[in-house]
Amino acid sequence: MNLIDGNNIAESVINELKEIVSLQVEKPCVAFVRVGNDPASVSYVRKKEKTAEKVGILSKLYVLPNSISENDLLERISELNNDRTVHGILVQAPLPHHINARCIFNHVAPSKDVDGFHAENLGKLCQEEETFISCTPAGISELIKRKKIETEGKHVVIVGRSLIVGKPAGMLFLKKGINGNSTVTFCHSRTPNLPEITRQADIVVAAIGKPLFIKPEMVKTGAVVIDVGINRISDPSKKSGFRLVGDVDFEKVAPKCKFITPVPGGVGPMTVAMLMSNTVQAFLKSRSS
Amino acid sequence: MNLIDGNNIAESVINELKEIVSLQVEKPCVAFVRVGNDPASVSYVRKKEKTAEKVGILSKLYVLPNSISENDLLERISELNNDRTVHGILVQAPLPHHINARCIFNHVAPSKDVDGFHAENLGKLCQEEETFISCTPAGISELIKRKKIETEGKHVVIVGRSLIVGKPAGMLFLKKGINGNSTVTFCHSRTPNLPEITRQADIVVAAIGKPLFIKPEMVKTGAVVIDVGINRISDPSKKSGFRLVGDVDFEKVAPKCKFITPVPGGVGPMTVAMLMSNTVQAFLKSRSS
Repeated sequence: MNLIDGNNIAESVINELKEIVSLQVEKPCVAFVRVGNDPASVSYVRKKEKTAEKVGILSKLYVLPNSISENDLLERISELNNDRTVHGILVQAPLPHHINARCIFNHVAPSKDVDGFHAENLGKLCQEEETFISCTPAGISELIKRKKIETEGKHVVIVGRSLIVGKPAGMLFLKKGINGNSTVTFCHSRTPNLPEITRQADIVVAAIGKPLFIKPEMVKTGAVVIDVGINRISDPSKKSGFRLVGDVDFEKVAPKCKFITPVPGGVGPMTVAMLMSNTVQAFLKSRSS
Repeated sequence: MNLIDGNNIAESVINELKEIVSLQVEKPCVAFVRVGNDPASVSYVRKKEKTAEKVGILSKLYVLPNSISENDLLERISELNNDRTVHGILVQAPLPHHINARCIFNHVAPSKDVDGFHAENLGKLCQEEETFISCTPAGISELIKRKKIETEGKHVVIVGRSLIVGKPAGMLFLKKGINGNSTVTFCHSRTPNLPEITRQADIVVAAIGKPLFIKPEMVKTGAVVIDVGINRISDPSKKSGFRLVGDVDFEKVAPKCKFITPVPGGVGPMTVAMLMSNTVQAFLKSRSS
């Protein structure tokens, strides 16, 4: 078993970005839009602000009331789209139920869409064109690359078909060329024989949002397991009353794996690092165009 | 074995569209852009023109010289994008080598992109948003729907990862809800154990562009086989010296199948029918917006 240390790799990415930014006269700037005060969102955005600061990226935080109308939110995004001092825009999910999140994400200018959620950027990913790739899949790809894990001709099984993780992650493994060329299977809640399929995988990406879902009998010996899940389960032994676990039953699965990402400290920090990478890319592109 | 008669189903689609168009005061109009005189392109575009006429769709043909520059072609497309009398635009592939095809397809206004090749429309397909779906995958989906073939929980294996067929077809089977909810595997030329994977499939979509590639030992008994290939192989017994075959060794594979599409007369006619369907949708949307 070989642990993939996401904190360590994320730090390398951040240091490389810091180096790039330090050579620039102007600094990249990312706008964070947070609607309401959901504690998880508050904490995620704070984490992103801190990381931006480390890299040397300026950030602006816009906190909008939970009651904001979809139209008003669209208008605020238009303002940011038109603001030449802002290079990247991130609208923190989840959004209130009365707002169509898809519509909001598709309203962010594709050139500032550092979250990679816009239809055009997702389409370009499918087209294997250069684009902003959704941060979690980009982080997975970066881990695979830096750990020199072979993907060519390997069978990658993606568990979960979300737009933010499952689908784009699969597209990255499927693309032609280096760090791609995999056979890719998408399974999900409607897959009847899921263990039979995950057992065939050379690489399993668990992104189904169910705590400890992937059990050792679902993974072949020598597999690489990437755990995208971040789930709270109650744990009376902790002061907070809960602990974070992934979608993989780590303790039992890890001994079978060639490589595995822990939760926390695996994919999570990479997601934030890739957001910074996308922001720096957006900035550099805005300079060159 | 149960043959899926694409000609017959395409005719139903065309008749339904004709009915819709007959109720309209104005008529939909599609622009065909053909660069050069490649005989296959000439014949495809002619087929599309004839089908448009059957439906009651007006068509305009623009034949441009093979020597046209990318910039000039982009400009012609801009003109069509701005032409309010044109509801759909189809640029016939393949384009000359000096032209970046991706750049051309991404220049067609998404609202007129009846081929469904634009990044934004492809992205919306991944997002499970309403969009123009690339005609061949849309045709496959329509065949599955009209033959009432169950997809929920079924394993669909897509052989071929092209942007025009493989990837969007997989996304359609993967989407949530009716005619979706499948487990989807993409395999391709870099898949080492391809027969092992196709043998697991309840539904095989062969879109790899290799004549007679899928052999009976690669398909399980009772599978549904959708053959997207259109390949010319030499046949001295024919006047033309060749005949059309699919990517499936039909004669040998058909006896094992629950359903199979022939070539010709399977997916091919559906592709043209769905182009008409997209054009009618583009027209109706332009009326309502």
